[in-house]
Amino acid sequence: MQETNRTEIATLGEFGLIKHLTKDIELKNPETQYGVGDDAAVLEFKDKKVLVTTDLLMEGVHFDLVYTPLKHLGYKSAIVNFSDIYAMNGTPKQITVSIALSKRFCIEDLEQFYDGLKLACELHHVDIVGGDTTSSVTGLAISITCIGEADKDKVVYRNGAQDTDLICVSGDLGGAYMGLQLLEREKAVFQGEKEANPDFSGKEYILERQLKPEARKDIIEKLAKAGIKPTAMMDISDGLSSELLHICSQSNTGCRVYEERIPIDYQTAVMAEELNMNVTTCALNGGEDYELLFTVPLTKHEQVSAIEGIKVIGHITKPELGCALITRDGQEFELKAQGWNPLKEK
Amino acid sequence: MQETNRTEIATLGEFGLIKHLTKDIELKNPETQYGVGDDAAVLEFKDKKVLVTTDLLMEGVHFDLVYTPLKHLGYKSAIVNFSDIYAMNGTPKQITVSIALSKRFCIEDLEQFYDGLKLACELHHVDIVGGDTTSSVTGLAISITCIGEADKDKVVYRNGAQDTDLICVSGDLGGAYMGLQLLEREKAVFQGEKEANPDFSGKEYILERQLKPEARKDIIEKLAKAGIKPTAMMDISDGLSSELLHICSQSNTGCRVYEERIPIDYQTAVMAEELNMNVTTCALNGGEDYELLFTVPLTKHEQVSAIEGIKVIGHITKPELGCALITRDGQEFELKAQGWNPLKEK
Repeated sequence: MQETNRTEIATLGEFGLIKHLTKDIELKNPETQYGVGDDAAVLEFKDKKVLVTTDLLMEGVHFDLVYTPLKHLGYKSAIVNFSDIYAMNGTPKQITVSIALSKRFCIEDLEQFYDGLKLACELHHVDIVGGDTTSSVTGLAISITCIGEADKDKVVYRNGAQDTDLICVSGDLGGAYMGLQLLEREKAVFQGEKEANPDFSGKEYILERQLKPEARKDIIEKLAKAGIKPTAMMDISDGLSSELLHICSQSNTGCRVYEERIPIDYQTAVMAEELNMNVTTCALNGGEDYELLFTVPLTKHEQVSAIEGIKVIGHITKPELGCALITRDGQEFELKAQGWNPLKEK
Repeated sequence: MQETNRTEIATLGEFGLIKHLTKDIELKNPETQYGVGDDAAVLEFKDKKVLVTTDLLMEGVHFDLVYTPLKHLGYKSAIVNFSDIYAMNGTPKQITVSIALSKRFCIEDLEQFYDGLKLACELHHVDIVGGDTTSSVTGLAISITCIGEADKDKVVYRNGAQDTDLICVSGDLGGAYMGLQLLEREKAVFQGEKEANPDFSGKEYILERQLKPEARKDIIEKLAKAGIKPTAMMDISDGLSSELLHICSQSNTGCRVYEERIPIDYQTAVMAEELNMNVTTCALNGGEDYELLFTVPLTKHEQVSAIEGIKVIGHITKPELGCALITRDGQEFELKAQGWNPLKEK
């Protein structure tokens, strides 16, 4: 929260606030015909499939404002939705943005949140076309819906994986979770001791993975360029294990994943060691990496391996073989979904 | 909240809960190609405009669970979004439903909420295609996004009203607000005195207006049948004054509305008298009626007057004449937006 330049939201009211935050928005896409300012936005998609995804983010559950700058929160709120559209092999085109806020937020806070949102939208050529701004008697709530498009024969579901397909992931895993652990540790230190200065040097990458994740538009574009249409795809928001089990259960297959092939960044590994955690467990179960998990036919092995930023980590099997991780020493462990579950008993 | 048959949400977890609540959903519309269960829903609209609207409802701001049954809340949450699509002269087709809930809610509560949602969706032929279910450390938050369609030349915006156009409303106004006042009064009585039994007899209509509003699909259909395309339209969620000012400011016009023509139900008038409130003020500024406010060319006077459930309440003027109410005794008062504003200083 900003300390200086505090302008109360009540000075503008709901409609004034919306006007203030959206006045400089220029619609970029021809598919967007009317944005903010009426009962509904008006869009037109010629001869395409329309994709719709939505996320609800609650303060105290999905983010902690103690260490999350509002600009980053705005950026991330948009990115996690774009990621879902890319995971369908589509292109995000529009978002609606609803926020409920309490009196402790001022207009400058909202401006920062919108700055982050707008930056993400600019990078991904997405239009902000509507939303709802209201008050909350408790914490901050953010609900974003993203609309995207895809060519009719290009949509990729979770249920298309076939026996012998290769399992691929983009980027590296576990970093966002390690970033969260680091932030939580420093928050605890900070709350215990007022003089404490958090030391984040050498840990910039994992912090960025947590606070400013990216959606892998580039991977979707590279796959298209290489003429590869994945057989199944989703984004990794709840952890690799959990997502793999979704693909296998919806595709009615099993899978084998090799521990040694799971891509892990150096900083992630160092942080895991510092915290006495098993780095593979973090990569399997830590959420919020927003990388893409997908399967391609075995015949695409050479082409997919040649793409920078993609790693083949295993293969799809017949369903009766179940879903397992093969460790470095050759042992087989059943994959379990132990990823982030906001509704699980704590 | 239900007292008996309490099944904790943690017994199912996020994915189990979603599956439980959505398992019997059958997709009704050919425009819905894939619903719940992937990263995004997949839709296809052939040669139509796509409409998108969204609402975020927060406990303690938009609803009070002391007197709002969860089934009604589910129904209303869907209806308010359908209403926005009808207000564009469109047809709602799909919704996504996001909810954040705390531990005090059990699965049976959610089932009731979904029963209400599904009932509204059934009546309006709308598919539930996705959403997000998560936890809240505080109150209940509900975010619904509705996608609709309209023929390319049929979309009606707020900005098309012209000098001399007739101003029309459907149904009657102020009832939902009076229902809310009644519920708040009985809640206060109830909290003061445990034995008190709220007496709602003869007040069923205004209670229903508040707890179970309807979206005016029928009016849209009647207008289409009569060959009338409104020049401007919106739904009345924040109060007639506020909405009229939106239409006039966006259309760059003024307006004259006649007090004696504003449709008010008998129960609304009786309740206003009981509470010592001016019933016209209630009809002008009370929100949540979800009736349609629209303008039609003067030449349509006869046709529009012949439609049951529609009342002509005034006319559009040149902008320099401003926006005014003409009272029963012929005085002119400037219209002010004093409707519901969740972000206004209390």
